[in-house]
Amino acid sequence: MSSVAGRRCLVTGGLGFIGSNLALALAGAGADVTVVDACYPRHGANPANLDDPAGEGIRRITADLADTALRPALEGVELVFNLAGQVSHVDSMNDPVFDLDVNTRSQVAFLEALRWASPGATVVYTSTRQLFGRPQYLPVDEAHPVQPVDVNGISKHAAEQFHLLYRERYGLAASVVRLTNVFGPRQRLRDDFQGFLPIFVRRALLGQPISLFGDGAQERDCLYVDDVVDCLVRAATTPEAAGEVFNVGNDEHLSLRVIAELIVAAAGAGTVELVPWPPDRDAIDIGSYFGDSSKAKRMLGWTPEIPFADGIARTVDFYRAHLARYL
Amino acid sequence: MSSVAGRRCLVTGGLGFIGSNLALALAGAGADVTVVDACYPRHGANPANLDDPAGEGIRRITADLADTALRPALEGVELVFNLAGQVSHVDSMNDPVFDLDVNTRSQVAFLEALRWASPGATVVYTSTRQLFGRPQYLPVDEAHPVQPVDVNGISKHAAEQFHLLYRERYGLAASVVRLTNVFGPRQRLRDDFQGFLPIFVRRALLGQPISLFGDGAQERDCLYVDDVVDCLVRAATTPEAAGEVFNVGNDEHLSLRVIAELIVAAAGAGTVELVPWPPDRDAIDIGSYFGDSSKAKRMLGWTPEIPFADGIARTVDFYRAHLARYL
Repeated sequence: MSSVAGRRCLVTGGLGFIGSNLALALAGAGADVTVVDACYPRHGANPANLDDPAGEGIRRITADLADTALRPALEGVELVFNLAGQVSHVDSMNDPVFDLDVNTRSQVAFLEALRWASPGATVVYTSTRQLFGRPQYLPVDEAHPVQPVDVNGISKHAAEQFHLLYRERYGLAASVVRLTNVFGPRQRLRDDFQGFLPIFVRRALLGQPISLFGDGAQERDCLYVDDVVDCLVRAATTPEAAGEVFNVGNDEHLSLRVIAELIVAAAGAGTVELVPWPPDRDAIDIGSYFGDSSKAKRMLGWTPEIPFADGIARTVDFYRAHLARYL
Repeated sequence: MSSVAGRRCLVTGGLGFIGSNLALALAGAGADVTVVDACYPRHGANPANLDDPAGEGIRRITADLADTALRPALEGVELVFNLAGQVSHVDSMNDPVFDLDVNTRSQVAFLEALRWASPGATVVYTSTRQLFGRPQYLPVDEAHPVQPVDVNGISKHAAEQFHLLYRERYGLAASVVRLTNVFGPRQRLRDDFQGFLPIFVRRALLGQPISLFGDGAQERDCLYVDDVVDCLVRAATTPEAAGEVFNVGNDEHLSLRVIAELIVAAAGAGTVELVPWPPDRDAIDIGSYFGDSSKAKRMLGWTPEIPFADGIARTVDFYRAHLARYL
């Protein structure tokens, strides 16, 4: 992290889960940090996420990435961590135009503004493993076919391509990091449409049962948010990363059942229950998923440091102290 | 074409080059035809394109595909030929947000409206060979990697994916036809940003030289518009086409030099001149391109019928009679 000291950083989606953890880490390491967030309802933005001593010097802009209000903040920016987005797959099907607007249209407008304002900037765009759909093989590397199964997968993939195009055509130092399931402090726990980890954590903390379909044997590779922050900073400060796509997951593969049991154990509350698959199983079951992070390890010198059990203990500690802000 | 008699057809981009030829053919075959066109400046829309006895019964709506004004026309529609789009690759780089708005955002809004209004409709979406970029092998089949080299390629590819997603999720009978270079009557000849064929035709008709870089040996597979119309109608009336993507080109491969010479011969005017490659050759030269149409031939029973020399003779005849409308 020392490499970011004194550098002008912009974190989009900076009031959200990963964005706020990243912004606090950058500020703590001496970077000059601005966050921008559109604060759309149902998204992850939470102003309380920056209520931390490290957050005091962080500038905050409320804007969509397409807004002209953002332009002054783009002048002279060096490192852009581009995390803004609509992340709910369910919501993307319910309002496909809005998902495309936020995840693709605003990104294009942002890239276009950025390339004129700061053509030498580095941009790390965070994408998602979900654009692979049901994996054809495991672990999923960067050569795996992209086969989006919902609007969100299409719009995020298009945004990836725009980043790489702006690298190719205009020399913007853009890279793409495709994340797996991320957990940790500052994640929105309130709802059931942003991935299974926040649902499990909330239910355990509230002493409620966590329901798993079938035997819960499908595996996932979860990442603690600090490991993700480390990876994003490395991508932004490794010149060779420009123009590259990285699948970023974890070699620790856990079944959903073990994940749920570890969360219940850490929380000291809740239970795990197995329920039969609903009739439309094929529509929702992608089987096991884990990514192949070899390229990120090789090119970025990155490796995840925090085992799931340790990360979930830290997560539970955080929410015990701040639960009201996240429900 | 007899299979469309009496059926309710909607042609988007129906005042444009391919759309108008298709709309006239459908109306001539006894279909109930509505065309919609946004009539954006610099696009291919030309109201004169339907000035033909066959066009008299065609209903016309001026609207973007995202406009609510279009909704009533979607009720009860059976066959949708979805040709509306921004086709200039140069313009897509100059105004990327507009290209995405027209080629992706409006398409999503259209699909969303259509699936509620006429969930049983068939949709044939016309895409472009340009999303393959510089081919990795020839002829280019449907398994060739998609590697867009400009904004237009990304936005058209995203629209393809949305059509296939709406097939997968909602049962809309959508297929995708990726066209190669198409020529014939009713194409906009005025400008230099919509492909090489209209430029060549215009320059020959005006007695001007056609300039080719290098030796003009790069090959292309051109398609006469009537063959494209035939293919689109087959795709719309072949139930097995739903959910499929077709690369549609021509087995007649001609070098750019031969294409230019045949156009000059047909026009009885103009000349062909060879000029050195400009310094940025790598940025503009994709080498030879021709598609593998085996899948379309096999599944749709389609085969192109009109050799280039015949098609260009018909094309020249048409523009001789109507040149003022197209310049």
